[in-house]
Amino acid sequence: MPASIDALRNIAAQLRIDSVRATSEAGSGHPTSCMSAADIVAALFFSEMRYDPKNPQLPENDRFVLSKGHAAPLLYAAWAEAGLFPREDLLKLRTIGSDLEGHPTPRLAFVDVATGSLGQGICAAIGTALNARRIGSDYRTYVVLGDGESAEGSVWEAADVGAFQKLDNLCAIVDVNGLGQSRATQFGHNMDEFAKRWTAFGWHAIVIDGHDMQAILDALAEARSTKGRPTVILARTVKGQGVASIAGKDGWHGKALKKGPEEDAALAELQRQLVPGAARPDIPRPSAAAGRAARTDYSRLAAPAYKKGDVVATREAGGVALAAVGAVDDRIVALDADVKNSTFSDKFEKEFKDRFYENFIAEQVMVGAAMGLAARGAIPFASTFACFLTRAADFIRMAGISFVNVKLTGSHAGISIGEDGPSQMALEDLSMMRAVPDCVVLYPCEAVSTARLVNEMARHKGMVYMRTSRPKTPVLYDPSEEFPIGGSRVLRQSANDEATVVGAGVTVFEALKAYDELQKVGVAIRVIDAYSVQPIDSATLRACAKATKRRVITVEDHYASGGLGDAASEALAVDGVAVTRLAVREIARSGQPEELLDRYGISARHIIDAVKGSH
Amino acid sequence: MPASIDALRNIAAQLRIDSVRATSEAGSGHPTSCMSAADIVAALFFSEMRYDPKNPQLPENDRFVLSKGHAAPLLYAAWAEAGLFPREDLLKLRTIGSDLEGHPTPRLAFVDVATGSLGQGICAAIGTALNARRIGSDYRTYVVLGDGESAEGSVWEAADVGAFQKLDNLCAIVDVNGLGQSRATQFGHNMDEFAKRWTAFGWHAIVIDGHDMQAILDALAEARSTKGRPTVILARTVKGQGVASIAGKDGWHGKALKKGPEEDAALAELQRQLVPGAARPDIPRPSAAAGRAARTDYSRLAAPAYKKGDVVATREAGGVALAAVGAVDDRIVALDADVKNSTFSDKFEKEFKDRFYENFIAEQVMVGAAMGLAARGAIPFASTFACFLTRAADFIRMAGISFVNVKLTGSHAGISIGEDGPSQMALEDLSMMRAVPDCVVLYPCEAVSTARLVNEMARHKGMVYMRTSRPKTPVLYDPSEEFPIGGSRVLRQSANDEATVVGAGVTVFEALKAYDELQKVGVAIRVIDAYSVQPIDSATLRACAKATKRRVITVEDHYASGGLGDAASEALAVDGVAVTRLAVREIARSGQPEELLDRYGISARHIIDAVKGSH
Repeated sequence: MPASIDALRNIAAQLRIDSVRATSEAGSGHPTSCMSAADIVAALFFSEMRYDPKNPQLPENDRFVLSKGHAAPLLYAAWAEAGLFPREDLLKLRTIGSDLEGHPTPRLAFVDVATGSLGQGICAAIGTALNARRIGSDYRTYVVLGDGESAEGSVWEAADVGAFQKLDNLCAIVDVNGLGQSRATQFGHNMDEFAKRWTAFGWHAIVIDGHDMQAILDALAEARSTKGRPTVILARTVKGQGVASIAGKDGWHGKALKKGPEEDAALAELQRQLVPGAARPDIPRPSAAAGRAARTDYSRLAAPAYKKGDVVATREAGGVALAAVGAVDDRIVALDADVKNSTFSDKFEKEFKDRFYENFIAEQVMVGAAMGLAARGAIPFASTFACFLTRAADFIRMAGISFVNVKLTGSHAGISIGEDGPSQMALEDLSMMRAVPDCVVLYPCEAVSTARLVNEMARHKGMVYMRTSRPKTPVLYDPSEEFPIGGSRVLRQSANDEATVVGAGVTVFEALKAYDELQKVGVAIRVIDAYSVQPIDSATLRACAKATKRRVITVEDHYASGGLGDAASEALAVDGVAVTRLAVREIARSGQPEELLDRYGISARHIIDAVKGSH
Repeated sequence: MPASIDALRNIAAQLRIDSVRATSEAGSGHPTSCMSAADIVAALFFSEMRYDPKNPQLPENDRFVLSKGHAAPLLYAAWAEAGLFPREDLLKLRTIGSDLEGHPTPRLAFVDVATGSLGQGICAAIGTALNARRIGSDYRTYVVLGDGESAEGSVWEAADVGAFQKLDNLCAIVDVNGLGQSRATQFGHNMDEFAKRWTAFGWHAIVIDGHDMQAILDALAEARSTKGRPTVILARTVKGQGVASIAGKDGWHGKALKKGPEEDAALAELQRQLVPGAARPDIPRPSAAAGRAARTDYSRLAAPAYKKGDVVATREAGGVALAAVGAVDDRIVALDADVKNSTFSDKFEKEFKDRFYENFIAEQVMVGAAMGLAARGAIPFASTFACFLTRAADFIRMAGISFVNVKLTGSHAGISIGEDGPSQMALEDLSMMRAVPDCVVLYPCEAVSTARLVNEMARHKGMVYMRTSRPKTPVLYDPSEEFPIGGSRVLRQSANDEATVVGAGVTVFEALKAYDELQKVGVAIRVIDAYSVQPIDSATLRACAKATKRRVITVEDHYASGGLGDAASEALAVDGVAVTRLAVREIARSGQPEELLDRYGISARHIIDAVKGSH
C-alpha cells in the first residue's frame, strides 16, 4: 500500500530513534544532523523512490546520494528500515568490524560514492543522472545536501552543469537547519538567500517546511513533473528536531547523546512521536526499464597506426586512442573542462557527441561527475591540463575512497610545456595520484605506448591516471608491442653498464641522449622507460640495479617529492639500494622547453654528470 | 590632468598594439584575451586607480589583480605605459631571461599573487581587500576576471565571502567576451545570466558595454560610491576587439598572430585607432593614509605552559599558541572554514575578533584570501582538517608559485582520528605540502614542540604547513627547549643501537613503545622525533644511520608516497642508505585509533617486526 502521512511520520520518528541509538552506542557521530533530515529521508525511501530494498545495486533503482555524509546513521537507519539488514546492526556503527562507518563508503552496497567531504555528493549525483540518460533509463537521482555544505564552490559547479545538461531526472534537497559545525551558517534560515542562488543558476527551486511531510511529498511530486531543468527543494529544518532539549541549539554538532539518562530521555521523547497503528508502506519498485546493456568488442581494436620515427605528442596520441577505444566499448564516456582542443578529447567528442560531457572550467564537478558515472557502470575518462587536476585533489582523494572506475588524463605535464610558465606546469601530479592507494599511474613517453596504455586504462578495473606531455616526441616502439600496467621497457643495456638511468615521459629522451654521449667516452648505461610509475616494475628495477653496480639514477619532469624517484627508491629499498634523484627542485619560470630542462637539472647533461659523479 | 575619453581610448589602442606585438614576437600567448579587456584596463590604470607607477608595492596603492592571468601581456603593457619599465621590454615576453612570464608571477613587483589558474585571483582579491580593513587603509582592490573563469566554484566562494564581509572596497570586473578556449562559454553574451548570479550572491552588479569608455568610467564611479557590499561590473566585450579579422571569432584563443603580414595588418588596423593629439593623462596618486604600521614584540612571548606528562592534543596546543603569538604580532590573522572549534582557532578569534575571518565551508577562498592577505603584509594562519586542505591543493600550488608568507595548519591528520573514517583522514597532506618547493612542513608530536613551532611559523618568512593530530599525547619536552625549523630530536640512543626509527606526530609514541619492548629483549634502537619533515634534519639522520649499521626505519601516519619515509630516503640517498618505510598502504576504515594504527601497519608491533626483520 502507498505511504500514508502517518506512516511516514512514524518512520521518520523511528529513523531519529535509530540515529540517536547508534551514535550514543558508538560514543560519537552526528545525531542532530540526522534528525533535521529524517522527514526528508523517510519520504524519499518510503514513498518517492522506486527501488528494490534487497538489491541496492539494481541498475533501474532510483539513486540516493547523501552529500551531507556526516548524517550517515540516518542513511543506515533508512536501509535497515527498508529491510536490507537487521536494525540491531546499527549499533555496530563506527566499529572496526562493521561497514557502517562514520561516513558512508561503497563498502556498503547501497553507497555509490563515498561522502563526508562536503560538496562532493552533488557532483557525483550529476554523474549518476547523466548515466541514466546514457543508458536510456528512467531512474531518477536524489541528493540530500546540507546548508553549510552549500558554501563549497563545487556545489555551484554542479548547479551550472546540472542546468546546462537540463537534468530533470535530478532532484536535490537542501536540509537547511541553519547551524554549521562551529556556529550558525552564513544565512541561517533565510530561505530566500538559497532560493535566489539556485534560481539564478537555472534550477527550479521549491521552499518548504522540511518537517511538514505533506509539503515534502508535494515538492517531490513537483520535482518529478518539472521538465527541462533540475529541481532543488529547499527544506527549512531544525537541527536535532524531535528532541526539544537539543533542537535548534548551537553546540550540538557532531556530538552523541551520552548513554544513560541523556540518551534515555531523548529516546523516550522520540518514542512518544511514534504513531500507533500506522501501516507500513510498500516501497515503490522500479520500472522494468533497466536501460541499454553495454556493447563492447575489443577484438575490433586495431593496433596504433604509428611508425617508428613519427613525431607525435603523447597528449594527441592519447586523444586519438580514446576515440578508438570508445568505438569498441560504449561504456566509455569523456569529460573535459574547456581544454578539449589541447587534451585532444575533442577527437572523442567528434565521434561520440552524446558520450562527451563539457564541464567548462570546473574541474571539481568534472571529476565528481566522473565518479557518479563510474559508480553506475560507465567508464569515464576525464581530462584537463595535469596541473588543473590539482583543483580536484579532494575529489581524487574521495574517488580513491570510493573505489570507482575513474580514468583521469592530465596533459601538459612538467616544465617541458615551456613558455606558459609555472602556473601551467604540473610538477606534483604524480605525487598526488601516487597518494591514492591502488591508483595506477602511467606516464608514457611516445605515441605507441600511449595508445596501448589508453586501452589498458579502459580495461583495468579501478582508478588510473595517465600523464601526457605537450612536446612532440619520436615514436620508439613497434605498433604490435604490448605495454602492460606495471611493466617497463629496457631501452639500452649491455653487460658493462655502469648505472641504470630510469626516465619516464620526456626524460626518456634525455636519458637516450645521455647514453649516446656517454657511449662516446666509453661509458655504458642502462636506460629504462618506466611508463608505469605505479605500480612500478620492481622486478626489472631490482634486476637492473643488481646488474649495474647498485647505481640507479632517476630523472623526472616533476618535483623530487612523491614522483618517479620516490617510487623507484621504495621498490629498491628492499635490496638496500639507494636512488639518486634528478628532479625539479624550485619554482620554474617561462622559457623554451629545452632551456628549462637544462636549467632545472633534468637534461642529458645532468644525467651524464650524475652517472660520472654518483657512486 | 585627468584622463579624457580620447586619451583613454588612445591608451587602450596602445595596449592592444603592445599585446599583439609581444605575443607575436614570443610566438605564443593570448592576444585576443588581452584585446577584450584593454578598454577596462586602460580606464583602471589611467583614470580610476590611485597608485605610484614607479613604486608598485607602496602600501597605500590601490591593488590590481588579473584573475584571468592569461591576459598577462595586457597587464605588462599597462605598467610599461604607466612608465615602470621601457615599452621595448615587452618584446622579451616569455623568454627565459625576462620576468615577463607567460602568466603573471610576483617575480614582478606589481604582481601580488601569481595567476593563471583561473578562479584564484578573485579569492586573493578578497584577501587584499580584507587587508585594507585590517590596517585601516582606504586603498581599493580591483580584480579582472574572465567569463569562462566564472565557472570555477572558487569564484562563488569568493562571492559569498565578499558579501559576508561587506567588502565595498572591492570591485570585480568580468570581461564577458563570450568565448572560452575550446568553444563558446556556457552563457555567451547573455549578460543577464551573470547579473542574476552575482546579484543573488549579494553583490551590486552593473552591466555595461566593455568597449564604451564612458560607461566603464561611470560604472567604476558607481562601484566606488556603493557602500556595504562589493560591486561587480559585467562588461560585454568582444574577444580580439580592435582587429576585425579575428574579433569575436572562435579558434583564436591562445594564438599569437604570425609575424609578417598577419601581424603587420593587425598592427596597422590598431594604429589607425590611435587618437591624434590626445593628451597623456596623469595617474591619480594614492591618499596619504598608508594604514597602521605593524606592532610586534616577540620579547613578550612566554614559554609554553606545559609540564612533562601533561596530556594535550597538538591541535589544541597549536590553537593556544596561535592566540599567544597573535598577542605579540598584530600582523597575524587567522582564517578558518567552520571548524574553528576543532582546530582551536577559536582561541585566536576569542582574543582578536577583528583579525579572524570565517570562510564557512569554503577552503579554496580561505587559502586564496590568505594569499592576498600575505601579499599585503599580514601573516595569515589558515586552518581546517588536514584532509580538507586538499580541497585547496591548486591554491596551495599557486601559493608556492606566489612566494607568499602563508601559514597553513591541518588538524585531525591520519588514521589516528579513528571513528570518523577515511573521508576525514588526511594521509596525503605531507606529500601535497612537500611538493611545494621551499615550503616548510612541520609535524610535532606533543604540546611544547607544537607551541614552539607555531612561533617559528610566525617568524619564518615563507610558506609553512603544520600538521596536527586529534588524539591527546603526553608532553615530552621541557618548555624552555627550542625547536628550530630543520631540526629533530633524538629521544633514545645508545652506543649499541641496532637501527634508527624515525617517527613524527603520533608515531613517535609508537616508536617509544617499541623501544621499551625491544629493551626487554636486549635490543637497543635509536628513536628520532622528526618534527621538521621539510627541511628534514639530514645531518642527524645521516649521523644516526651511520651509528646504527645503516639501518633506518621510518614510521608515519600517512601514505607511503611523498611523506616522511620519502623525505628521509632522499636525505640518506647521498650515503647510499636505503630506508624501510612503515606507512599506511590502503584505504583505511572507521575504528578506534589504536586498532587502526595496528591494523594498518604503523604501531609499535610493526616497528618491532621491522627492527627484527630488516637487514
